[in-house]
Amino acid sequence: MSAPAESKSANQMWGGRFAEGPDAIMTAINASIGFDKRLYAQDIAGSRAHAAMLAATGIVTPSDAKAIGEGLLTVLSEIETGQFQFRTDLEDIHMNVENRLKEIIGAPAGRLHTARSRNDQVAVDFRLWVRDQCDAAIAGLTALMRAFVAQAEAGVDWVMPGFTHLQTAQPVTWGHHMMSYVEMFARDRSRFEDARRRMNECPLGAAALAGTGFPIDRQMTAAALGFDRPTANSLDSVSDRDFALEFLAASSICAMHLSRFAEELVIWSSAQFRFVRLSDKWTTGSSIMPQKKNPDAAELLRAKIGRILGATVALFTVMKGLPLTYSKDMQEDKEQVFDAADTLMLGLAAMTGMVGDMTANRDVLAQAAASGFSTATDLADWLVRELGLPFREAHHVTGTLVALAESAGCDLPDLTLEQMQGVHAGIRADVFDVLGVENSVRSRQSYGGTAPDQVRAQIARWKEKLA
Amino acid sequence: MSAPAESKSANQMWGGRFAEGPDAIMTAINASIGFDKRLYAQDIAGSRAHAAMLAATGIVTPSDAKAIGEGLLTVLSEIETGQFQFRTDLEDIHMNVENRLKEIIGAPAGRLHTARSRNDQVAVDFRLWVRDQCDAAIAGLTALMRAFVAQAEAGVDWVMPGFTHLQTAQPVTWGHHMMSYVEMFARDRSRFEDARRRMNECPLGAAALAGTGFPIDRQMTAAALGFDRPTANSLDSVSDRDFALEFLAASSICAMHLSRFAEELVIWSSAQFRFVRLSDKWTTGSSIMPQKKNPDAAELLRAKIGRILGATVALFTVMKGLPLTYSKDMQEDKEQVFDAADTLMLGLAAMTGMVGDMTANRDVLAQAAASGFSTATDLADWLVRELGLPFREAHHVTGTLVALAESAGCDLPDLTLEQMQGVHAGIRADVFDVLGVENSVRSRQSYGGTAPDQVRAQIARWKEKLA
Amino acid sequence: MSAPAESKSANQMWGGRFAEGPDAIMTAINASIGFDKRLYAQDIAGSRAHAAMLAATGIVTPSDAKAIGEGLLTVLSEIETGQFQFRTDLEDIHMNVENRLKEIIGAPAGRLHTARSRNDQVAVDFRLWVRDQCDAAIAGLTALMRAFVAQAEAGVDWVMPGFTHLQTAQPVTWGHHMMSYVEMFARDRSRFEDARRRMNECPLGAAALAGTGFPIDRQMTAAALGFDRPTANSLDSVSDRDFALEFLAASSICAMHLSRFAEELVIWSSAQFRFVRLSDKWTTGSSIMPQKKNPDAAELLRAKIGRILGATVALFTVMKGLPLTYSKDMQEDKEQVFDAADTLMLGLAAMTGMVGDMTANRDVLAQAAASGFSTATDLADWLVRELGLPFREAHHVTGTLVALAESAGCDLPDLTLEQMQGVHAGIRADVFDVLGVENSVRSRQSYGGTAPDQVRAQIARWKEKLA
Amino acid sequence: MSAPAESKSANQMWGGRFAEGPDAIMTAINASIGFDKRLYAQDIAGSRAHAAMLAATGIVTPSDAKAIGEGLLTVLSEIETGQFQFRTDLEDIHMNVENRLKEIIGAPAGRLHTARSRNDQVAVDFRLWVRDQCDAAIAGLTALMRAFVAQAEAGVDWVMPGFTHLQTAQPVTWGHHMMSYVEMFARDRSRFEDARRRMNECPLGAAALAGTGFPIDRQMTAAALGFDRPTANSLDSVSDRDFALEFLAASSICAMHLSRFAEELVIWSSAQFRFVRLSDKWTTGSSIMPQKKNPDAAELLRAKIGRILGATVALFTVMKGLPLTYSKDMQEDKEQVFDAADTLMLGLAAMTGMVGDMTANRDVLAQAAASGFSTATDLADWLVRELGLPFREAHHVTGTLVALAESAGCDLPDLTLEQMQGVHAGIRADVFDVLGVENSVRSRQSYGGTAPDQVRAQIARWKEKLA
Repeated sequence: MSAPAESKSANQMWGGRFAEGPDAIMTAINASIGFDKRLYAQDIAGSRAHAAMLAATGIVTPSDAKAIGEGLLTVLSEIETGQFQFRTDLEDIHMNVENRLKEIIGAPAGRLHTARSRNDQVAVDFRLWVRDQCDAAIAGLTALMRAFVAQAEAGVDWVMPGFTHLQTAQPVTWGHHMMSYVEMFARDRSRFEDARRRMNECPLGAAALAGTGFPIDRQMTAAALGFDRPTANSLDSVSDRDFALEFLAASSICAMHLSRFAEELVIWSSAQFRFVRLSDKWTTGSSIMPQKKNPDAAELLRAKIGRILGATVALFTVMKGLPLTYSKDMQEDKEQVFDAADTLMLGLAAMTGMVGDMTANRDVLAQAAASGFSTATDLADWLVRELGLPFREAHHVTGTLVALAESAGCDLPDLTLEQMQGVHAGIRADVFDVLGVENSVRSRQSYGGTAPDQVRAQIARWKEKLA
Repeated sequence: MSAPAESKSANQMWGGRFAEGPDAIMTAINASIGFDKRLYAQDIAGSRAHAAMLAATGIVTPSDAKAIGEGLLTVLSEIETGQFQFRTDLEDIHMNVENRLKEIIGAPAGRLHTARSRNDQVAVDFRLWVRDQCDAAIAGLTALMRAFVAQAEAGVDWVMPGFTHLQTAQPVTWGHHMMSYVEMFARDRSRFEDARRRMNECPLGAAALAGTGFPIDRQMTAAALGFDRPTANSLDSVSDRDFALEFLAASSICAMHLSRFAEELVIWSSAQFRFVRLSDKWTTGSSIMPQKKNPDAAELLRAKIGRILGATVALFTVMKGLPLTYSKDMQEDKEQVFDAADTLMLGLAAMTGMVGDMTANRDVLAQAAASGFSTATDLADWLVRELGLPFREAHHVTGTLVALAESAGCDLPDLTLEQMQGVHAGIRADVFDVLGVENSVRSRQSYGGTAPDQVRAQIARWKEKLA
Repeated sequence: MSAPAESKSANQMWGGRFAEGPDAIMTAINASIGFDKRLYAQDIAGSRAHAAMLAATGIVTPSDAKAIGEGLLTVLSEIETGQFQFRTDLEDIHMNVENRLKEIIGAPAGRLHTARSRNDQVAVDFRLWVRDQCDAAIAGLTALMRAFVAQAEAGVDWVMPGFTHLQTAQPVTWGHHMMSYVEMFARDRSRFEDARRRMNECPLGAAALAGTGFPIDRQMTAAALGFDRPTANSLDSVSDRDFALEFLAASSICAMHLSRFAEELVIWSSAQFRFVRLSDKWTTGSSIMPQKKNPDAAELLRAKIGRILGATVALFTVMKGLPLTYSKDMQEDKEQVFDAADTLMLGLAAMTGMVGDMTANRDVLAQAAASGFSTATDLADWLVRELGLPFREAHHVTGTLVALAESAGCDLPDLTLEQMQGVHAGIRADVFDVLGVENSVRSRQSYGGTAPDQVRAQIARWKEKLA
Repeated sequence: MSAPAESKSANQMWGGRFAEGPDAIMTAINASIGFDKRLYAQDIAGSRAHAAMLAATGIVTPSDAKAIGEGLLTVLSEIETGQFQFRTDLEDIHMNVENRLKEIIGAPAGRLHTARSRNDQVAVDFRLWVRDQCDAAIAGLTALMRAFVAQAEAGVDWVMPGFTHLQTAQPVTWGHHMMSYVEMFARDRSRFEDARRRMNECPLGAAALAGTGFPIDRQMTAAALGFDRPTANSLDSVSDRDFALEFLAASSICAMHLSRFAEELVIWSSAQFRFVRLSDKWTTGSSIMPQKKNPDAAELLRAKIGRILGATVALFTVMKGLPLTYSKDMQEDKEQVFDAADTLMLGLAAMTGMVGDMTANRDVLAQAAASGFSTATDLADWLVRELGLPFREAHHVTGTLVALAESAGCDLPDLTLEQMQGVHAGIRADVFDVLGVENSVRSRQSYGGTAPDQVRAQIARWKEKLA
């Protein structure tokens, strides 16, 4: 493979790739059927609603509308059973469906496109698809939240280190940590709910861009397709893709949350941490290194935010600076949203699976929680709360006691009351109620705190909401 | 400037920049007071609410709380009057305020930090700030929508070309085009409303991460700061920045809308289009080229999406894969949100100003609307609607008539009825009711369509909502 | 489609999608054969080079190496003729090829994986693929540059407006404008050349991550695969993907250039500009609106930067914060690069085609160039240059003359010498040599300026370089 | 803070922010002096070179040029000593400098702008600035590479775990791991070198966009400013910002590398890993938790890629789809590049400092390296290499031996030869030469492998290159 040979091969490849000339290039860049065939169900649902409305308003005859409606069901069935031949020369899903409809029912097929345009047709198809993905995300997030709640319930009072900067800061409970993700994913879910509600207006009837002179009934098609109402401005209806961007943004935020727990799983699975054991279903191993358990699924989930954020940036960049109304640039919307949605749904499913069958190493967690004088702040708080010491003095006393324990090679609860009183005479025996990680977590009774009672209350609240 | 000299200068610059050594570098990378001082009002409001609650729950004495509350007002006043000296060695806004409080009121200042931590303090400060920006965005969008409605009202029935692919497709009205942006910005506004509602939970009381053993009343501080409720999980409270990401995402979508109208303004201001005249306030000229009117503000608004999207990507990238709870990485959140919010508010103000005093060139718009056989689809629709022709045949007849007009050097309404009937005998005189751009737009009476009556209805609806 | 029904359908879809359980989910998220089969030629080339080296160093027998080499050619042939059955259960291209090799040649296939690992195998496969894409980009850019040079040559002295802010600033030539893109794409080409050179080191032999104890000859495999040398650190070899990021960054910059000319084409194709006519190959029309010529390909090219930039952001996000060495996250690299490379190559081909057969409307360009007192700066420069007026005074005189022409309803060259001398007595008849757009462009003789002679010199230089 | 009050406050804030009206808004969005004053040195250098050329070509008199040159030095001195008053009403650095020059030298100042324009002036200023940053990045990377080489040299043969998936895979050496970053940062450095070389063409003389009729000498100004040559097309010269994008892309890749080592430092500093101790200079602690050592600087370095990638996305988005030549949008280029460059240089300095004084915990590393049967692949390779076993059989034997060791509670080198021969009779005593982590790393003698001799050779090579 000398340089000249390579360069020849590059040119050949270059030439070869596009040897068929301009028509092949234009088809490759222009045709969308390769990806928009995924909209077939939405396209047919939209057309059926449109046809029914055309009949109800007298724009087409009942018999034509009936032929169209039944013909479309035949097309749907052909697609779903794999009998349908998609044709690139027909460019997109709309023409593929319409052409086949004509083959099946003949002349009446020509009436279907009355009072509509490909512009509002694609707008309604895509919106229906994105709306379905909102529903899927909501369902997937609900399943994931349930998995976290189940983990939380199983280990509601197991102590573990609460980290800041990946350094042990204060002991918390496994249940509390699990429930923090329930909060995050609940907000994600509500973002999809808001996005769904906002996009749930029907663009059908905007026609090419200006509306139509036919006496259509947009309320009727909107209702038939489950929309809350028709859109209020036909130019806007065929021009905007903000609903897709909002879906992508909500997906990116959710993927961010997934990446955070995925990172925790990767770190927790390391030989150095050993906080959790992931099941074999989500890991790969080595036949000769039995301890090696690669957290492949967790790593992939950590990475998937890249893909979803990339899709988000892609569509923002496409939409930047486009004059109204439809421009062909907007054809770039679908593949990005398809890929992001697929990635998100797969990620939610995989995370739900992983969370469902992972096992916390309770002993390792407890041991880690107790290290590093993790209850020093509890001691300082006790001094403030019970003895009325100013914050700064409490810190000084605590620091002295920690140093004493350190030099004695023991932890704070292992000091005797006498040793403590040697540092500050006012210390009483009930100080031991907050020392030790179990006591520490039990004491944090503020609303939303890590005390098992607080966590149990949150679990109960969520179990009810997720029932 | 020979190469060696340059390389020396680069090394010197390099050395010079960081000549003071590690401490200077660490200060430069670590201290946040340079930017987080913008949170002073939020920090003081949060501390005042916290102090009042500490007194109400008996954790500090009423007199200490009173001293703290009044001292904080003094600090606030010092900052707002420019008398406050921010100190980099105190790192952040929290320490700067607390340190000054201590200088003013002495010992009681030490009680303020009871039952809280910098982690929940920064969380509440930043959330209050972002919430204020949601309110500012809502107000700014409302003003912008009013400006578009006013433009729409002024030219509700002025005809202009409706473009697809920047090619004339069908005539629409100026009012209709203006109102399409009202729809877009209304959705933007509702996104900020949703974001505000979702973030409106108070993290104060989460303390470092685990909650606290002090008998605090989180409902009380939440209410005092205008929050709907306290957050439900302390780990989540100090760890997440999804509210900032949601604000950034909503801002990016809004900036996308701004960029689209900005692009239209740039194109419409060109000598070739001359659709609008921007006022001198928003343009720059040339002393020797009187026609040259550079739409500087519009160009900058077109560009600003870059800045806001960049900030969005930045914070997503920062948050990707961070284990719980607080990590120092998260200090990168503020500057991105500050810059994006400033950019958005400035952009909304500039666009409101530009829309408010721009002038549509009604004649140019009308002339452009009539060119290119822009009512050909009206004719085709008429043939379908009135004569019952199938869609495809209607298109054939229309094409023949267009060709006839083209060869005669006239537009469609200039053909005689006889000429038309020569192509299709069934054509009647009332076909002229839909030909001509005025007739065309008047005929598009479907809900949300471009007919002036429809647009007037939308204007009325929005004037009421925006009153 | 009532709400309950929808929600049920969402859950069913959710469930249905992943009904097969964890194994199906893990396969879906983990297997790469669906996309990495595109690396088959690189994988086989790498394996053949490796096998030859194993024989040359005595690590495997010549007969085994021969069997492996021939068997791999058989596999290659099966893949290229479409006879190969890719199996998802074998996860990736490496296992698919190796497994088939074993079916064909039996035991010796087991020797192939000696002294290597999937980690260095995928590293070399992907690097070879990206290197090929650099070559393809270089070839594609060369073809595009030739197309621009041809356009420049055809209209080397045709005048057109030079815009700033989409406002006419000074007349330039069509040739000059075309050649500006040659400069941009030349820099793009050199970026791919640099990227190719930098990535052209062979990771094969890094094994899993630490190198190997087998006496391999890395120089030999590197040379056999056209690499300049082997990589120097085995950990780095299997860990980094900076070469892919550099390819993506270079592609994004190139896509930015494409988007700029695409925008020009869209604007220039509008009825208002009519600067160019794109051929029917790259546009779509309307059967009933003959003037409507939608510049679909140009719009898509304007949009494609979104896709490529999105892929770039995606891979950066994936790589952010990954500890060494290989992590499964990195499997996300391929699809992004595949899609970006395909998009870029298609974009270059389409742009080359469009540039090749577009037609400039010479008269429209000339007319536009002359409007707006576009030679006012020529007049001001002449006053400075020939009469020695200070810049500011020259501007004042020019402004007065422009106002005079404006009120007379004529252009600057239409003023008489007397009229000019009435404003400034020193003006001589040779001022007319710089007035008028033809004179203006002819006068701009500075290196790189718009004077036809300058442009001809640049064309000649590039024709030689591109020959 | 009731809801009505808040909404009032939002409106007031909104109003207050822009209460001064359109002029204040336009100034805020339009003026660049707030940031482009950073270009003062470049602006003055460019003007001095331009003035000298104008004199050499006879366009201005020697005395005027002398006055200009000296006056500019005075301005420079005023700026550098902090005496200069920047004025927002003069909009940008160019007008600020020129205006002050006029105050100092009077009339001749008016000659300086002959044969140039703000368009080529800003192009040369910004290019000079970015070129300086390339030099600074090169210097900073060189310093960082030296720090890694020093670490590598100190621990060239210290064993540590080589990770894949954050799971121990094979033992490597500390020196080898450190040197892998030298390779990465070396490629980063070469990217800045390539970018510098490519951008090193002088746009001065392009004037507004079309070149000029003055007999300027662009070679002279190019040479005076250290450029390799003048740019070849004036339209391109004032239109493109690809050099800034290339700088940003190279910075993003470098920041990606920084984020990876930063992540390693964060993980390695955890109580669970304890692989390194960062010095107090780069960490923050807790007065009451002596073990807690927050790796703040490392976390911030991990995060900084967000900021740099965000700036990259921002500028790409700005440049997307801009028609030629200069548009005001491009004013958005500077702040992004300024911030990214500052961030990168600070990040390189901080990382150099951290690497310089961090301490590897040699014992902890060694212990971790030995765990998990990390030399199992060495054993398998030995069986293939020395006994000629097929790969798969070697794996089977190794797996059996690992299981034997596991059940015996020992590591592989702790098995006796007899135990081994019980599994495979052919095993000889010299198998122990590859077992044990020290032996394992010593055996990996392939070029670029982890054997200390290989690493020493790489260190020597780099020390020479970095001398």
